[in-house]
Amino acid sequence: MNAPLPTRREETAAQRWGRFSPISTGEEYVASLRNRGVCVYLFGEKIAEPVDHPIIRPSINALQATYDLAIADPELATAHSPLVNARVNRFLHIVESPQDLVLKNRMQRRMGQLTGTCFQRCAGLDTISVLHSITWDIDQKHGTPYHQRYLDFMREAQCNNVIIGAGMTDPKGDRSKRPHEQADPDLFLHVTARNDRGLYVTGAKAHMTGGLNSHWICIMPTMNMTAADRDYAVVGMVPGDAEGLTYIYGRQSCDTRALEAGDIDKGNARYGGQETLVVFDNVFIPWEHVLLDGEYEFAQPMVARLTAYHRASYVCKTGLGDVMVGAAAAIAEYNGADAASHIKDKLVEMTHLNETIYSSAIASSHEAQQLASGIYMNDEMLANVCKHNVTRFPYEISRLAQDLAGGLMVTLPSQADFEQEETGPMLRKYFQGRPDIPVESRTRILRLIENMTLGRNAVGYLTESLHGAGSPQAQRIQILRGMELERKKGYAQELAGIEIIATDAAAR
Amino acid sequence: MNAPLPTRREETAAQRWGRFSPISTGEEYVASLRNRGVCVYLFGEKIAEPVDHPIIRPSINALQATYDLAIADPELATAHSPLVNARVNRFLHIVESPQDLVLKNRMQRRMGQLTGTCFQRCAGLDTISVLHSITWDIDQKHGTPYHQRYLDFMREAQCNNVIIGAGMTDPKGDRSKRPHEQADPDLFLHVTARNDRGLYVTGAKAHMTGGLNSHWICIMPTMNMTAADRDYAVVGMVPGDAEGLTYIYGRQSCDTRALEAGDIDKGNARYGGQETLVVFDNVFIPWEHVLLDGEYEFAQPMVARLTAYHRASYVCKTGLGDVMVGAAAAIAEYNGADAASHIKDKLVEMTHLNETIYSSAIASSHEAQQLASGIYMNDEMLANVCKHNVTRFPYEISRLAQDLAGGLMVTLPSQADFEQEETGPMLRKYFQGRPDIPVESRTRILRLIENMTLGRNAVGYLTESLHGAGSPQAQRIQILRGMELERKKGYAQELAGIEIIATDAAAR
Amino acid sequence: MNAPLPTRREETAAQRWGRFSPISTGEEYVASLRNRGVCVYLFGEKIAEPVDHPIIRPSINALQATYDLAIADPELATAHSPLVNARVNRFLHIVESPQDLVLKNRMQRRMGQLTGTCFQRCAGLDTISVLHSITWDIDQKHGTPYHQRYLDFMREAQCNNVIIGAGMTDPKGDRSKRPHEQADPDLFLHVTARNDRGLYVTGAKAHMTGGLNSHWICIMPTMNMTAADRDYAVVGMVPGDAEGLTYIYGRQSCDTRALEAGDIDKGNARYGGQETLVVFDNVFIPWEHVLLDGEYEFAQPMVARLTAYHRASYVCKTGLGDVMVGAAAAIAEYNGADAASHIKDKLVEMTHLNETIYSSAIASSHEAQQLASGIYMNDEMLANVCKHNVTRFPYEISRLAQDLAGGLMVTLPSQADFEQEETGPMLRKYFQGRPDIPVESRTRILRLIENMTLGRNAVGYLTESLHGAGSPQAQRIQILRGMELERKKGYAQELAGIEIIATDAAAR
Amino acid sequence: MNAPLPTRREETAAQRWGRFSPISTGEEYVASLRNRGVCVYLFGEKIAEPVDHPIIRPSINALQATYDLAIADPELATAHSPLVNARVNRFLHIVESPQDLVLKNRMQRRMGQLTGTCFQRCAGLDTISVLHSITWDIDQKHGTPYHQRYLDFMREAQCNNVIIGAGMTDPKGDRSKRPHEQADPDLFLHVTARNDRGLYVTGAKAHMTGGLNSHWICIMPTMNMTAADRDYAVVGMVPGDAEGLTYIYGRQSCDTRALEAGDIDKGNARYGGQETLVVFDNVFIPWEHVLLDGEYEFAQPMVARLTAYHRASYVCKTGLGDVMVGAAAAIAEYNGADAASHIKDKLVEMTHLNETIYSSAIASSHEAQQLASGIYMNDEMLANVCKHNVTRFPYEISRLAQDLAGGLMVTLPSQADFEQEETGPMLRKYFQGRPDIPVESRTRILRLIENMTLGRNAVGYLTESLHGAGSPQAQRIQILRGMELERKKGYAQELAGIEIIATDAAAR
Repeated sequence: MNAPLPTRREETAAQRWGRFSPISTGEEYVASLRNRGVCVYLFGEKIAEPVDHPIIRPSINALQATYDLAIADPELATAHSPLVNARVNRFLHIVESPQDLVLKNRMQRRMGQLTGTCFQRCAGLDTISVLHSITWDIDQKHGTPYHQRYLDFMREAQCNNVIIGAGMTDPKGDRSKRPHEQADPDLFLHVTARNDRGLYVTGAKAHMTGGLNSHWICIMPTMNMTAADRDYAVVGMVPGDAEGLTYIYGRQSCDTRALEAGDIDKGNARYGGQETLVVFDNVFIPWEHVLLDGEYEFAQPMVARLTAYHRASYVCKTGLGDVMVGAAAAIAEYNGADAASHIKDKLVEMTHLNETIYSSAIASSHEAQQLASGIYMNDEMLANVCKHNVTRFPYEISRLAQDLAGGLMVTLPSQADFEQEETGPMLRKYFQGRPDIPVESRTRILRLIENMTLGRNAVGYLTESLHGAGSPQAQRIQILRGMELERKKGYAQELAGIEIIATDAAAR
Repeated sequence: MNAPLPTRREETAAQRWGRFSPISTGEEYVASLRNRGVCVYLFGEKIAEPVDHPIIRPSINALQATYDLAIADPELATAHSPLVNARVNRFLHIVESPQDLVLKNRMQRRMGQLTGTCFQRCAGLDTISVLHSITWDIDQKHGTPYHQRYLDFMREAQCNNVIIGAGMTDPKGDRSKRPHEQADPDLFLHVTARNDRGLYVTGAKAHMTGGLNSHWICIMPTMNMTAADRDYAVVGMVPGDAEGLTYIYGRQSCDTRALEAGDIDKGNARYGGQETLVVFDNVFIPWEHVLLDGEYEFAQPMVARLTAYHRASYVCKTGLGDVMVGAAAAIAEYNGADAASHIKDKLVEMTHLNETIYSSAIASSHEAQQLASGIYMNDEMLANVCKHNVTRFPYEISRLAQDLAGGLMVTLPSQADFEQEETGPMLRKYFQGRPDIPVESRTRILRLIENMTLGRNAVGYLTESLHGAGSPQAQRIQILRGMELERKKGYAQELAGIEIIATDAAAR
Repeated sequence: MNAPLPTRREETAAQRWGRFSPISTGEEYVASLRNRGVCVYLFGEKIAEPVDHPIIRPSINALQATYDLAIADPELATAHSPLVNARVNRFLHIVESPQDLVLKNRMQRRMGQLTGTCFQRCAGLDTISVLHSITWDIDQKHGTPYHQRYLDFMREAQCNNVIIGAGMTDPKGDRSKRPHEQADPDLFLHVTARNDRGLYVTGAKAHMTGGLNSHWICIMPTMNMTAADRDYAVVGMVPGDAEGLTYIYGRQSCDTRALEAGDIDKGNARYGGQETLVVFDNVFIPWEHVLLDGEYEFAQPMVARLTAYHRASYVCKTGLGDVMVGAAAAIAEYNGADAASHIKDKLVEMTHLNETIYSSAIASSHEAQQLASGIYMNDEMLANVCKHNVTRFPYEISRLAQDLAGGLMVTLPSQADFEQEETGPMLRKYFQGRPDIPVESRTRILRLIENMTLGRNAVGYLTESLHGAGSPQAQRIQILRGMELERKKGYAQELAGIEIIATDAAAR
Repeated sequence: MNAPLPTRREETAAQRWGRFSPISTGEEYVASLRNRGVCVYLFGEKIAEPVDHPIIRPSINALQATYDLAIADPELATAHSPLVNARVNRFLHIVESPQDLVLKNRMQRRMGQLTGTCFQRCAGLDTISVLHSITWDIDQKHGTPYHQRYLDFMREAQCNNVIIGAGMTDPKGDRSKRPHEQADPDLFLHVTARNDRGLYVTGAKAHMTGGLNSHWICIMPTMNMTAADRDYAVVGMVPGDAEGLTYIYGRQSCDTRALEAGDIDKGNARYGGQETLVVFDNVFIPWEHVLLDGEYEFAQPMVARLTAYHRASYVCKTGLGDVMVGAAAAIAEYNGADAASHIKDKLVEMTHLNETIYSSAIASSHEAQQLASGIYMNDEMLANVCKHNVTRFPYEISRLAQDLAGGLMVTLPSQADFEQEETGPMLRKYFQGRPDIPVESRTRILRLIENMTLGRNAVGYLTESLHGAGSPQAQRIQILRGMELERKKGYAQELAGIEIIATDAAAR
């Protein structure tokens, strides 16, 4: 084990919270990210102020919208928290009922409609949900003080209205080896030292959603752990500007269009997603912010419960699906093709698939069950079913949207060409469709569809739909585990007139 | 208009109810069907006592199971009815909350697991649900007494614990013509005469589910009506043994196996579905049992609301899906193939599809809204999405079950050959699979899969899944109507930076 | 090893062929099946003359059609055979070119159009194709006389114009064990004795297509064999009426409709498929008809080559698909719905899927390669692709046909009810659709669709499409073997700019 | 009609050809594009020398590869041309047999494997194919000299080994109006003047593949024409550097990565596609290069035949599919996941889909028929089926490739970050997968998959697969036209026992 660097400030929880002040508006949120001195690299350069970087800013705007929505639609996007006896942003609310989960899903869909991208705040919400019950359960077994620490943290989090990011996915290295077996011990994040003030962790969290835009990162295990992996079983809250953190920005399809002049070719100029590699080099966490340390047997249920919450959160993609349906309907109209029966039929199919996803998510929420700690958790089978449909249907919705868009979506010249004095008139002349629709409207919708099916937000709408909250096979494994074959064999045997004899098979 | 036959007894509602006595058990239900003197034809012959006919009986058994379940699991299959201040069979319960609809769905899935077929009681339940609000709404507009008549009828129905069948689908004749335009006026059921005691109707109801097994048939319009179709806009309750009724039994794939000795080749010897053509030849209905007469403008909302309820009722197919999953898992085990990864993967896919259907149904129920009459109605979009998935996924589940079954499912000799002295030993010798599994168990499961994918209950699991509660295109039309393109276009335009100008298009 | 029964006549090849005389017409074919004294069981009874049994006859009719087509369309269904210097039925022709395989495919599609069922002659044709090259290859290695025996047999077969059935699938017992490891040694067919006149075999061949309708059965190994399975590695020609053979008839969905009066409810009254279990109890084969005996290492290539031929033969299902498209188009027309865009779109989809299957088959044939023996063999990858599409698309085509049919397909009363004096007029009145189309035409088409999607010929169109010539996973294994990942990785690495280093991985 | 600009040089055909010299190698091809003085705009700027522009060059490289392949594999990529009695590049060869079309398909697949993109030369090849028969047919009817002009042009084209681009797609404006009805007459390209030396055309050709990289552009009608559209019915050969031509470059997803340093993030640094808008402002064509002028009735068959050729040319996507399969297999191996059964199963599925496309294409070619002019044309139905599968399967292959790639594909930092001194070591440490595979290999394959599923070559692999050679609905219309419902209804009616009465329906 490496020695911790001697130069880290070993701040207390209070010192760390002391740097925050309550955030009320989206603008205050953006301001809160400034001047934090975080160490961020993008395109090989250290970024002085991420908030002002044109590639990074759209991802901040998406998170800002979660604050703005709380003001614009408090019924949907806030909830009364008994913890602080006040309304808090729903992204910080502790789930008290199935209805809370349903409202969460509605808010997620709404956010998808408003931003057309990944707004990066769900994994954090689902993390605070799972920690409620996990800390409770550990305390019951081990007499640890984690649940109270959790409540204390949440009280501050709600009062200050902060963003908590989920630092879950370790790089994993050689996938055939467990954490403690890796050639490089850092390929899973782990505790490197402990003292009476706290502990130190080293490692990295890969493709972390909205990592740079979060005030706090909750580090946690990415998979089940054994006794030999004890130092890898750690949960703690780390401020985003902690010493020892380095962010390396992940690039996305068409990311540099954000650096271009003009807003058309960006497709969705305001909003985008964000994934970063976050490197932890002996980062200090005070004990008050440690919520699990070595109780390795809770890593597995923690992951299982997180996926139960988080796989239903992929309902957000139905908000993006609504945008896709709308964009496809708009371009069909602009092309003068909206009355064709095959066009309407494709819009129906897109809607059918989108609503199928929605139904799996809200069904999972409505069917939530209460856990011992008092919190409610999504129905696990239906959450997996939801996410599994998300790994399929957005691709088909996207294909259908491209079908309605027509080939022009990928052959359209640049905005600069539309604005150039020689080519501009030619383009406006030759790309006129329905006479009453401005050519620019047509190009804007085409660029939006490009953005969501090939460009920057295709990352969120497609690839993240595939891999976020677990790749397709992860859902299949959970469905396999939960599908209760023996019970169902019993139905078949009963109807077939087979006398059922208890066998070893039944015990499998 | 034909003159009514003079010989019909013009019974009052009280006289008609007077022939009933409360049914407590499944056995009493079966007894209640005896000696009714109904006029039934099957294979060209008039059937003396349908209850004892081996082809008909399995369909009665399926309905019997709805009574048995109420005793075995009253939490699930009964509900407290304020109307009679007692627990009643849930198939007769007036929906008071979303939770009532969710419990209905669970009961439907359970019934599917128990019977592996169509248990024929959902359309009636959904009919009494829709009549609650429709009669209310008509009375509000026209000052009619329908809602009270409805409540009076329901009180008797609940007390006597009867089965109400839905007589909805008219033969329709030339589909390009409206009811009053048909060459033969009887191609839609209609009023032929009215007097101070009641009215007479003539026509037919096609492929009526469980018609012969019902105590009452509720006749109602099958589609929207115009002023010219006024006589076709009629709703009324007809006892199943009313004078003037003739039932002609629909045949099903493999129906005559029910006439064979032995229970193996039947696949599911106990349970089956039933569809009949019911011909109405000047059937009398007393005014107390008339719930709509000429208020044609309510035909359209009546159909729309009925499909909202009924398309979610197709959740029953997930119960059959559970049987399919169980049967496929059992045959894989009996074949010694259950450890193969591709086998497990196919079981996962079957489950995923089945649970996707389930989620759409219960989501639709959880999201139910209250109507003016006080009753709750399923979310319409999600109910359509549910049914639309039902038109697809059971076919794929069925294909996967056949995949796991192996070809033997369609080449297996008859039970008689297994019992014959020469061939029996050969068959038992050569069809032995895993040594610890009796050959008979293997054949029984194969016959069950045949029953549900090709045989008698394939009618319910496949074709009825396609066409019941409306064929696929009917759902697509409803999804088209409900998909709110203008709202979604707005999302896209906002993100694309298009200034939205109010246009005629927006008004479409 | 059991002792052979002493009572078998040990006939020479010449004696066996002596009982045949050349068949010229379909009628002569049917006559040739009479009075053979074969031992057949069906529904627990021994059948005196299978040719006259109403359940069996439609399967004979289907084979008869292969003779009739040779007369009606000799260009398509016959070919010049150098072996006998005369035109022979193409089902007996030795493939001399890719074009021969293409013409075979066209003939198969045509036969499917004409019969709407499995005409049972393809497996035999593909067997004689594979034996050409396999006997050649064995002789090259072992100096055996098999290829000449094969040519002698084929000369007689072509002259007498006989039907050869493929006896391939052993019952297999416990699938985790090899042939010689089975508890019962007979679970794979094997040699029980040899003398200077020939050898004896015992065992069974399961779900043998057209077994009872064949003049000869070619027994052969069902999978690869090891040295310890030497006695199981045997290929030989057995006359269908050989001593020691017992046929047990496999039942099919709706099989007993063939016993009913009237031809409507049968759907396809003339044609059906046939699968039997054929039990071999010490059946004698003279050496002249033994084409492999103990050269176990050729079992694997024999199976592989047979599937290359046979998986492309499933092109026959496109002929059935043509019938489905036609039936769906007809019922849409009879319902007056054929102008609806969604109806036309579904017919297009059915056609698209059907032609996709066709293209894989004929592509496989066009791309055939010549083997050492001089015969041509289908491209293996494309044959597997063809068959794999056949395991999917007919199910979707069938679903779409049911969609167009409407629910009446499964609720229609029996022909007897249409003919009964009371119900006949009612049914004709109420099932009238488009006024100019007879009700009977509508019912006939509905019964045909029922026949092919649920009834007797659904066995051939659906389940056999899934499992015949190998279940889906069998094709996936072959595709896995043939997909040349290293070559394709090379393309990717080259484009990605990766220097390719020879590694162990490359050798896998 | 606008007056032609007086300043155009009215060159003869000989003058135009005089500027060419025979091209032997890929390098000579690139050289031939230099210094042509073409007017090209990209990102609002006029490009001095397109050959040297880093965004344009990869598209030139792809065409260069068609020359290189002719040298590397002459059997595949050249053919003997009777016209010049020499071997010529197969992209210039006039089809003499089905085998020529099959070899064309193999060459197209090979080119796809080599370039991973659209190599832009197929539309031109298919255009010269269709002109052979169309010019012949017009001459037969009208006594015109087009076929001889065509042969003269082709002789020069083959001798000089030039690239011919297909200028087909007009902007079309309001799609509900015919060419002569458009508000702006230029929305379809048309003849503006004629004199004794030639004619002038004005208009534009949209998303023209490889337009800028072609030596000649063949302008032709994009759809059927009426007598009123006579001036729009024109076919002619225009040199790419003709006076009056302006090219406006279409932008693609991730196009500007070509401007970045480093080759990794480009994914496929060498190759890309190209689509431009080509504006024709009174461009002169000498009569020798006019191949149709006003014979409007031939526009429809010209389009139909072109799609027969061109829809089978989409077999090229199977070459890209091979790259996808290889890339997916490689990343699975680099991740250490290649032994998992679900991974292998997904590779099998990708291959199955890819080979299904291949089979439709080569089946269409093998089944080609000879036309009156002597040339062979692809089977139209199968060509449509091929292209229709291309509109679906690459999307699913792409989804599966992203599945195997894992989320890192869209969160990977830039090459610059890998090379930066602070972040480089971190990234190499944390993105190490299987210990024996360089991190750079992993990133390169991930960038290649990004390139083909989201980036620059996703344009060719996905969107162009959807819309090139006609959008999905265009194939469905052709399949509808060719599916011969009456013949297929006849099969069904025959089997169902329906007496077929000749009706008007039969004539439809």
